[in-house]
Amino acid sequence: MSKPILYSYFRSSCSYRVRIVLQLKNIPFEYKAVSLIKDGGEQHSSQYRQVNPFGFVPALVITDNDGKTHTLFESMAIIDYLEQKYPQNSIYPKDLIDRASSLAIAESITSGIQPVQNLELLKMLEKMGIDKSKWSKDWITGKFQSLEKVLETTCGKYCIGNTISIADICLVPQVYNAQRFEVDMSKFPTITRIANELEKNEAFQKAHPSVQPDTPKAS
Amino acid sequence: MSKPILYSYFRSSCSYRVRIVLQLKNIPFEYKAVSLIKDGGEQHSSQYRQVNPFGFVPALVITDNDGKTHTLFESMAIIDYLEQKYPQNSIYPKDLIDRASSLAIAESITSGIQPVQNLELLKMLEKMGIDKSKWSKDWITGKFQSLEKVLETTCGKYCIGNTISIADICLVPQVYNAQRFEVDMSKFPTITRIANELEKNEAFQKAHPSVQPDTPKAS
Repeated sequence: MSKPILYSYFRSSCSYRVRIVLQLKNIPFEYKAVSLIKDGGEQHSSQYRQVNPFGFVPALVITDNDGKTHTLFESMAIIDYLEQKYPQNSIYPKDLIDRASSLAIAESITSGIQPVQNLELLKMLEKMGIDKSKWSKDWITGKFQSLEKVLETTCGKYCIGNTISIADICLVPQVYNAQRFEVDMSKFPTITRIANELEKNEAFQKAHPSVQPDTPKAS
Repeated sequence: MSKPILYSYFRSSCSYRVRIVLQLKNIPFEYKAVSLIKDGGEQHSSQYRQVNPFGFVPALVITDNDGKTHTLFESMAIIDYLEQKYPQNSIYPKDLIDRASSLAIAESITSGIQPVQNLELLKMLEKMGIDKSKWSKDWITGKFQSLEKVLETTCGKYCIGNTISIADICLVPQVYNAQRFEVDMSKFPTITRIANELEKNEAFQKAHPSVQPDTPKAS
């Protein structure tokens, strides 16, 4: 069976989520870079739209048992596929309440935070004369206040007790975004502590934006 | 075991998704209305923040086998819980590729469309002098163009072949929103055909915003 091909951009937080899962589950994969800034964004090219009609990264091209290729898109759907196909190091807690909490924390990020500070939306706001950095910083700060309260009640070493779950996989890329937008993380000690703990994990380290094939070399 | 309690607002598309699943799986539940407009929004009250710290509907209060109550929040996490707990009339396709496609279509709505036209964001844009109706209409129209293309390749009677799945559960409330924002649906024949087909289903009918306990009576 061919290795899955991941279409990714080093700094895309949605790509980052999928990279973490590929690493956590030790799945070998091929990396194809799609620059979201070069030539106005390679994700808009007709070539890439053939891969993903929505024009977003990530996308994952997989080969099924019959040798047929399929392109999967949307990060959480890709992650769910990887969980079903490669059940090792499961990222969904077994306890149903923990599973629901973990997915809710993930969703509060994937639907409640990231879409409101993603590149496409920020470009639109910028054209309307809105300060996109302030917008993102304010939005993330507001949502992290609620997230901090929730995590205080669910966390152990990680978001849900002491086992890495889908919540952690979404948290770390969102904290990375928060830092880019200069959110004052000292207001969020629980989020910060969990993210710092996760950054010690090798899978999270390998998935980090600073070490991808398309990461610009420091000048 | 006590019936689950759904905190819902008749017109909230995220609540609508959960109502569809409760109806599809024939799960008896109690309905508690949370008005998103009364007194600036009951979801912001300290009372409701005790139920859901994020201050959103829906939330689902359930009682576990030990008699302990838990509050679940975020619509897709609630739906996943219902799928695990009540596996009848499954909403996740068995085939892994179909499952991934179904979840991707759902996610393209729950992360790609709905968050950019939700009430909180629109209020912020309005304060900045942006026409929120035009904003929502334009955003949904743009995203429906991609969704239409994807559905052309995956659909049968419904989004994925001929079985109702999580994609359909997210599609119908989003089409309802599109109609509220006067999106020209004639541009999207596949989306329209599928949504019309789903509206014949009794579970979708019972979950519709026009027939909820808190739906205002027509004057």
